[in-house]
Amino acid sequence: MNVEFINPFLVSLVNVISTMATMDLKPGKPQLKNHDIAKGDVSGLIGMVGPKTKGSLSITFEAPLILEIMHKMLGEKPSSINEEITDLVGEITNMVTGGAKNLLSDKGYDFDMATPVVVSGKNHTISHKSKGKKILMPFSHEHGMAFIEICFEDI
Amino acid sequence: MNVEFINPFLVSLVNVISTMATMDLKPGKPQLKNHDIAKGDVSGLIGMVGPKTKGSLSITFEAPLILEIMHKMLGEKPSSINEEITDLVGEITNMVTGGAKNLLSDKGYDFDMATPVVVSGKNHTISHKSKGKKILMPFSHEHGMAFIEICFEDI
Repeated sequence: MNVEFINPFLVSLVNVISTMATMDLKPGKPQLKNHDIAKGDVSGLIGMVGPKTKGSLSITFEAPLILEIMHKMLGEKPSSINEEITDLVGEITNMVTGGAKNLLSDKGYDFDMATPVVVSGKNHTISHKSKGKKILMPFSHEHGMAFIEICFEDI
Repeated sequence: MNVEFINPFLVSLVNVISTMATMDLKPGKPQLKNHDIAKGDVSGLIGMVGPKTKGSLSITFEAPLILEIMHKMLGEKPSSINEEITDLVGEITNMVTGGAKNLLSDKGYDFDMATPVVVSGKNHTISHKSKGKKILMPFSHEHGMAFIEICFEDI
């Protein structure tokens, strides 16, 4: 998996959060994920299936960050992860994956998206069970961290 | 979503656990899921994409139940959710979805599976963000509960 494949996801998340919440997430260095080090409080997950590949994506947020994103969007700040927040995380997951899908489609990589699933639970970890390499992209903001993880395998 | 569609998933989980661990899960009554009531400690999730439908499945286990399943399979019982357990949950998720896929394919329902993702974290909840109805199937055992949740939407 090369930079050409990673950047569309990275750019999509930065754009989505900038557009929705006028907040700038600072991307860290993408890395191969060898252990389950990304912990967070709410995660959106989505499956992807293409003619030659299948895989999964997750976007994990620390609670203070996603609460601030909601605050900036709506002017209100829920005190904890509620259904509004999980809906928002589901939408972000769809938008980021859809944005990357469009960018990748132009380069000849094609996949269809399943529907997103959102997990909430303090300090959970995500393990992508794919034969392919797992890429972890960290994003930082003064309110907390976010992580994208993607992996694809050939079929 | 009708019984014809629900039963293959229910039967697959009971068969997989019976075959792998000689344990009998007792299926409860499938129900429409209106709230995020299924809590557990480790969940396998998988996306599904067909020509006319897309959706997601999750299988959630309470920790004592999945630890006992591992115990029955291998004779050893890890003290907590480790990577062996998340690998096992990923495999169960693949096997159950694959089993249901075969049964449903015979009836003309077709979908391809993405790769599974496993979430671990005490007492997490799962929200399937699909426009379709969400079905919750509870399973009981003296060691704890398991839950399958599925939803599909038309595309």
